[in-house]
Amino acid sequence: MADKSEIEEGLAFAPKFGADGLITAVVTDVKSGELLMVAHMNAEALRKTIESGEAWYYSRSRKKLWKKGESSGHVQRVIELRVDCDQDALWLKVEQEGPGACHTGRRSCFYRSVPLGNAPDAALVLEFRDAGKAFDPAKVYGGKGD
Amino acid sequence: MADKSEIEEGLAFAPKFGADGLITAVVTDVKSGELLMVAHMNAEALRKTIESGEAWYYSRSRKKLWKKGESSGHVQRVIELRVDCDQDALWLKVEQEGPGACHTGRRSCFYRSVPLGNAPDAALVLEFRDAGKAFDPAKVYGGKGD
Repeated sequence: MADKSEIEEGLAFAPKFGADGLITAVVTDVKSGELLMVAHMNAEALRKTIESGEAWYYSRSRKKLWKKGESSGHVQRVIELRVDCDQDALWLKVEQEGPGACHTGRRSCFYRSVPLGNAPDAALVLEFRDAGKAFDPAKVYGGKGD
Repeated sequence: MADKSEIEEGLAFAPKFGADGLITAVVTDVKSGELLMVAHMNAEALRKTIESGEAWYYSRSRKKLWKKGESSGHVQRVIELRVDCDQDALWLKVEQEGPGACHTGRRSCFYRSVPLGNAPDAALVLEFRDAGKAFDPAKVYGGKGD
């Protein structure tokens, strides 16, 4: 295994997958900078993403490899891929095809805000933010999601 | 357990921690939108972050709770906290105190780019991007990091 300084300051790509075989992928819109989604990749999803320039992920709930947009057409073209200091997280700057990235029909998966400053045991009530539907997920996914 | 539609469309905050007790936290600069870092929170780190409005995390390598900036002074004031559709990822929009968020001395942890379009078995050589040191980590952390 490479040492810490090589991982952090070196030029060898050595992605560190977790015990579950996955690495976290943060996905932003290359033009607006907006955070679209957080997903996970296994080694095969990462290989396919690098080779094709389109985003592939591993679904933890469906336990399978998936290409973003495979059923919706909402493909993500990867303009730049970055890795973080300890090489256990990836950042994809993408061009998002179609109106949105989220399977709920929103542009971004992060459409609810958590109130800050609450007493520790208070039940936290979320607030919608930028939560308008950009598309109808039932029509786009036909119940399959992607 | 809340059903899928309640988790995705409801207003009850129900963060889903992984088998390791952690949830992924994506941290961006509230002004520039720049991705600063990806970290993890356990329930206590999340509670402290919500109560104090300053970012607390759980270090997987050091196996301990830590307040960002506890040794460096590079505190992160949380301006907005969001949760994603399935409530297994958090987004912190922060004001980053000091010159940078990364323990290597950079503004952001994502200072290396992975080349795209390579043959699957080619060794991937990273390229530095925005990799100038914003501060001297040896001076700021005194070998402790945060």
